[in-house]
Amino acid sequence: MSEDIVKKLASGELKLHQADENASTRREAVDMRREAVERITGTDLSSIGKYSYDPEVVTRKNIENAIGAVQIPLGIAGPIAINGEYAKGDFYLPLATTEGALVASVNRGCSVCRASGGVAAAVLQDEMTRAPVVKAKNLKEARRLAEAVKTPELFAEMRAIAGTTTKHGELLRVDPYVVGRSVFLRLAFDTKDAMGMNMVTIASDAIMRSLEKKFDVKLVALSSNMCTDKKPAAINVIEGRGRTTVAEVIVPRKIIVEKLRATPEDMCDVNYRKNFLGSARAVSFGFNAQVANIVAAMYIACGQDPAHVVEGSNAITSAEMDGEDLHFSVSFPSLPLGTVGGGTGLATQSECLSLLGVRGGGNPPGSNARKFAEIVASAGLAGELSLLGALASQDLAKAHAKYGR
Amino acid sequence: MSEDIVKKLASGELKLHQADENASTRREAVDMRREAVERITGTDLSSIGKYSYDPEVVTRKNIENAIGAVQIPLGIAGPIAINGEYAKGDFYLPLATTEGALVASVNRGCSVCRASGGVAAAVLQDEMTRAPVVKAKNLKEARRLAEAVKTPELFAEMRAIAGTTTKHGELLRVDPYVVGRSVFLRLAFDTKDAMGMNMVTIASDAIMRSLEKKFDVKLVALSSNMCTDKKPAAINVIEGRGRTTVAEVIVPRKIIVEKLRATPEDMCDVNYRKNFLGSARAVSFGFNAQVANIVAAMYIACGQDPAHVVEGSNAITSAEMDGEDLHFSVSFPSLPLGTVGGGTGLATQSECLSLLGVRGGGNPPGSNARKFAEIVASAGLAGELSLLGALASQDLAKAHAKYGR
Amino acid sequence: MSEDIVKKLASGELKLHQADENASTRREAVDMRREAVERITGTDLSSIGKYSYDPEVVTRKNIENAIGAVQIPLGIAGPIAINGEYAKGDFYLPLATTEGALVASVNRGCSVCRASGGVAAAVLQDEMTRAPVVKAKNLKEARRLAEAVKTPELFAEMRAIAGTTTKHGELLRVDPYVVGRSVFLRLAFDTKDAMGMNMVTIASDAIMRSLEKKFDVKLVALSSNMCTDKKPAAINVIEGRGRTTVAEVIVPRKIIVEKLRATPEDMCDVNYRKNFLGSARAVSFGFNAQVANIVAAMYIACGQDPAHVVEGSNAITSAEMDGEDLHFSVSFPSLPLGTVGGGTGLATQSECLSLLGVRGGGNPPGSNARKFAEIVASAGLAGELSLLGALASQDLAKAHAKYGR
Amino acid sequence: MSEDIVKKLASGELKLHQADENASTRREAVDMRREAVERITGTDLSSIGKYSYDPEVVTRKNIENAIGAVQIPLGIAGPIAINGEYAKGDFYLPLATTEGALVASVNRGCSVCRASGGVAAAVLQDEMTRAPVVKAKNLKEARRLAEAVKTPELFAEMRAIAGTTTKHGELLRVDPYVVGRSVFLRLAFDTKDAMGMNMVTIASDAIMRSLEKKFDVKLVALSSNMCTDKKPAAINVIEGRGRTTVAEVIVPRKIIVEKLRATPEDMCDVNYRKNFLGSARAVSFGFNAQVANIVAAMYIACGQDPAHVVEGSNAITSAEMDGEDLHFSVSFPSLPLGTVGGGTGLATQSECLSLLGVRGGGNPPGSNARKFAEIVASAGLAGELSLLGALASQDLAKAHAKYGR
Repeated sequence: MSEDIVKKLASGELKLHQADENASTRREAVDMRREAVERITGTDLSSIGKYSYDPEVVTRKNIENAIGAVQIPLGIAGPIAINGEYAKGDFYLPLATTEGALVASVNRGCSVCRASGGVAAAVLQDEMTRAPVVKAKNLKEARRLAEAVKTPELFAEMRAIAGTTTKHGELLRVDPYVVGRSVFLRLAFDTKDAMGMNMVTIASDAIMRSLEKKFDVKLVALSSNMCTDKKPAAINVIEGRGRTTVAEVIVPRKIIVEKLRATPEDMCDVNYRKNFLGSARAVSFGFNAQVANIVAAMYIACGQDPAHVVEGSNAITSAEMDGEDLHFSVSFPSLPLGTVGGGTGLATQSECLSLLGVRGGGNPPGSNARKFAEIVASAGLAGELSLLGALASQDLAKAHAKYGR
Repeated sequence: MSEDIVKKLASGELKLHQADENASTRREAVDMRREAVERITGTDLSSIGKYSYDPEVVTRKNIENAIGAVQIPLGIAGPIAINGEYAKGDFYLPLATTEGALVASVNRGCSVCRASGGVAAAVLQDEMTRAPVVKAKNLKEARRLAEAVKTPELFAEMRAIAGTTTKHGELLRVDPYVVGRSVFLRLAFDTKDAMGMNMVTIASDAIMRSLEKKFDVKLVALSSNMCTDKKPAAINVIEGRGRTTVAEVIVPRKIIVEKLRATPEDMCDVNYRKNFLGSARAVSFGFNAQVANIVAAMYIACGQDPAHVVEGSNAITSAEMDGEDLHFSVSFPSLPLGTVGGGTGLATQSECLSLLGVRGGGNPPGSNARKFAEIVASAGLAGELSLLGALASQDLAKAHAKYGR
Repeated sequence: MSEDIVKKLASGELKLHQADENASTRREAVDMRREAVERITGTDLSSIGKYSYDPEVVTRKNIENAIGAVQIPLGIAGPIAINGEYAKGDFYLPLATTEGALVASVNRGCSVCRASGGVAAAVLQDEMTRAPVVKAKNLKEARRLAEAVKTPELFAEMRAIAGTTTKHGELLRVDPYVVGRSVFLRLAFDTKDAMGMNMVTIASDAIMRSLEKKFDVKLVALSSNMCTDKKPAAINVIEGRGRTTVAEVIVPRKIIVEKLRATPEDMCDVNYRKNFLGSARAVSFGFNAQVANIVAAMYIACGQDPAHVVEGSNAITSAEMDGEDLHFSVSFPSLPLGTVGGGTGLATQSECLSLLGVRGGGNPPGSNARKFAEIVASAGLAGELSLLGALASQDLAKAHAKYGR
Repeated sequence: MSEDIVKKLASGELKLHQADENASTRREAVDMRREAVERITGTDLSSIGKYSYDPEVVTRKNIENAIGAVQIPLGIAGPIAINGEYAKGDFYLPLATTEGALVASVNRGCSVCRASGGVAAAVLQDEMTRAPVVKAKNLKEARRLAEAVKTPELFAEMRAIAGTTTKHGELLRVDPYVVGRSVFLRLAFDTKDAMGMNMVTIASDAIMRSLEKKFDVKLVALSSNMCTDKKPAAINVIEGRGRTTVAEVIVPRKIIVEKLRATPEDMCDVNYRKNFLGSARAVSFGFNAQVANIVAAMYIACGQDPAHVVEGSNAITSAEMDGEDLHFSVSFPSLPLGTVGGGTGLATQSECLSLLGVRGGGNPPGSNARKFAEIVASAGLAGELSLLGALASQDLAKAHAKYGR
């Protein structure tokens, strides 16, 4: 570590990112930058300085101006028994969180699921989207483009162009939306095991360059808000984004009573009043209790983009009587996730993916990501069961106290 | 580390959480549990095993079944110059992310802000909410409760009850919503420097126990979905939740041209077409480009609850001409955050808060959290400026290529 | 009728509205204009020419360029037994519609309600809103205004100004919303028996002129979309607009079985799956089956603004088990309506209001409008009961056929 | 008119609908029923008794328990010059309303459009939807159905079944949505000149009966809320319902200044702040000023279902600079309407359709309905131009007064 460089960084003579080019290794650059920030701000950042990822890779691919790492405690829930199309068997769930009681809550849900014979899960749709927006001279030109992209000829051409930019991705659909003279093209891709945002952005760029040449339109933004990426959006609830996944369990009445100290009827009432009447009056896109907690904890553990929790929070939890038992499901219209790319290669994240048996690309391609989606959805279901059970039984407990039953 | 205990954990004879009671220290419990999970799943979790937080505290307060930690790379953007009510001066922004280019993008936005004389920021409302739901016998009884909580007498009583459960929190408002015979009471609290969910849950519980005695109603769920916690919800956009914060900068045309290679008019057009026309047609709650990225990165760095990114993503970015210059603002209706409690006390997270000068409770109480909110909002603004600038200039660049300008 | 004037109107020498000033009576003007339009377009408009309203009044207050009237068939459903705060007794419901089966459907619902002992109804909030938007120089100035309107002093002043413009209206609340440098002031008024949009617009104009003088802000639109008038908007669902009204009935199982040929459980299942799961996945503001049909038919019959059906369609229908019986309710957050002003004075509309006993101003003021709101909500409930019953029994019938039960 | 029957109706010995079978003509039945209601309620309904429709037809097809008609004043705006795909030329717009100033406002907008060379309009999609919901035993069975309907074989079969129920309708698409074990099938039809709800309901019923036989599912409701009929719903905004139509005009600066006394820049600012910032913060589906007013007035005049104003209010108004001029458009994702069926055959309504040249079925089929859609959208555009112009100029006027310009 060169004191001289640190001084220049601290004085502003060198910019923070220039540590990289003035260090012999990336690890040294990280250290010098952290040291400089410590001096400038008068703070001790020594815990941040302890990190296990490989700085040569990570500071080039995953982050700029690195000074170290933040640590998020990791706990294990489960095992949860899943009988999915891709995920089959028992899974130990890695959850990264600082919110006390979360792991315990999911754990309890896993135990209910296990006692009920396991969770059924399925990926119903698998598409990553990007939606460029162009401006045409007028409605007529806008319409011309919107209609053209629906022809098999132009679609085939767009698909071929996409193919030149990626080995893995595949253009599946183009949905055009016209607003005045603006045309939004929602491009949907199969991205195999990758979450796929980068892949689809590059493919979309190539497609749009070609369309700009053919049509009298001007690209305004390669990503309009009809993707919709990391903003709550009805289009994702309705059309899906990422892996559209459902998890389901049928819990025998006996299990509800024994493990959750509630009845199936209580569970249905809490779910109806809290998750439906409440979300209806609050005008929410999320008809669930806490799926964002579980999605966030698993996404952070497994190297996913944590801002995608926004899409992941759009789930619908349904509690229904099934004879005397409880039919319970959580439907996730939009779970963007992947097992390659992004933060999946970092040391600790990669270990979490290994733990689930979904590290790296699957065979066939895409199967690891779908397996992972089934696991995340099942974990979400466990969390819902547990929290709604807690609400239902607490209520029952109080009713007992109150009415002397 | 007792091989015997590890074996029992691995065989299932002991449950994973029983490692805690069978170890001499929490660190040992963490190690034995991790070792057991490694054996069960046949994976190597050694990187996860390296962690810097204090297990005696963290495994009691922040996580159950801990096996170590996940590391998220931490980078620094800025400094950003803020002229807020609480945040005044230059701030180096800690961003925890694995998404390449994010830190660089925020950094560029900070540079534009600095060149423009800095960001104005303000916290306009500061309330954490919890909304229990009760079921009454009928509409008449539901209405009786809804009207009673609006009387000064009952409100004073509820406020006093809340006061017995917390030194810091303060009940500010009660908004009753009636749906059929259900009553949702949205209770809004001042939680000072805490994000405050735990505090308001405990206070709400005490309030509801009292109301259950006075009125012929039955508590169905202490948290209905009208809070609305961690689900996208219009009520949070409209009424606010957490720290309602706005950041603003007026960027001279010259700076836009030089630093972003675009014009103010381009910026307005991209913002209008992408963030407004696009979000309108996608029916989104978020009229912004990427604030969730910045909120997520800062929340993870600073020990916040990452599932609150859902609320944080509900922002409105406005780009408007100001004479020849650009008036640019990002309005966050709902930023739940705090500088005490939750994950704020962990070693690395605490260092990040120190870096911003907002570690622990503020003087006066609440001032640290508000300062932090102004910083997060300003960081979000920097990210918006940068991304919209990139879209606008890329476009310009292409236009140049295309039209030979 | 002057042939000369008709010719000039038909040739375009006179504009259509100039018929008024070139006729001896308004009736003649209407006739000449219609005649001219017939000639221009070569169509026969003789049925339109038969109308019963008073042209001297109506062409000055309710319509320009009148050529006659459109007739909407009027049917009667009921009586419905209501036990509201204002509406007490049996009511015959006037429904103007061209949709076959609608009156019959409501009628059947009324019969179920009567057999169940009648409908309970209540107006929970009563406010008409208008939300001007101003632009300030910057966030600081925007905030200054937003905070000032929350002070008792300025509010009292605004209230007094409103008072100078209307004898009936009364300013109740001001909710400021800041977006960047724009401030939206949602002004809520008690408008007594009037729907009140005109009244509140005039009062708001006076208030804003005063605020423009005091603050460094510029009025951009007297009506921003935060009112929200005649657009679907969550703010109306959450905060209410017009008369926030709930209607409820507890239907004994026996009645459900006999009159609807279904069971309470069926009703709950249809309501849950159709109105909740369906609306959740469609991202709808309306968790009901068909309330818009009934609101539209009663609004048209009774001289209301039919575009307010948009707000009226935002209702939540809840079907819940009540022991063995059915608890059924419809909650209307936003029913804008009145018994004076608008189209309430026209001959046929006025007769419909008389039929309900709510013609003109109430005693005390406001009581007629609230009574009317309770009746509309009860009619909506009857329509919901009937349609959901039809769905539930049709289903049952098929199940019988299918499973031989 | 038999006094005896009237007495029995008034006393309740006969039910109101029994007047039909106890009268020699339907006209007599209407009269007796009205007389009975007059006696029961002690009100005079003589104006309602004057009606021009044919009771023999209308009381069988359009209404039950008829007692006469309500009259809505009808005014004429225009002509508006339209250069659509179907609507070409000048159109006089029939508007049925009791809201003073509405006709004048649309009229002014028409004048601006005419001076600007007319309106461009186009129908971009044309589909009426119905979405039955079924319950399956579990997720697996639900998925089986959802995947099957996407196969060409089953789709062809469903299409053929639909074809047996209607000469005019044609099944275009089936979009399955799975929530837990519920499957919603959104069936989209070409309904030619009919609005088509009845047609698609009958076709959907036949399709579902067939699917119930093939799959282990139970039809819960023929119409779930994913249609979405007459409730505000994002699915209609995004996917469209009825005639998806856009109208556009480019208004020269000179015309804005002369006719609206504003500037294009003012128009853009008012539109942005009112219709976008305001609707964003109110969380609205409608980014427009007043389209519901125009849709309601034209729908009522032309025999449409007025509850469909709910869908019609979901429009996006865009005001953009086009060089020095104003590019102005209104995009209606969901305009359900038709020129045959429903109320289109009534005397006065039929005259209004004639006035527009769209009475009855078109040649080719569907062309009249599309022409009508282009006219309604253009009328909506005229209303938007006029109201935004009024807001912009009022503002300008005040600015003049204030700043002495």
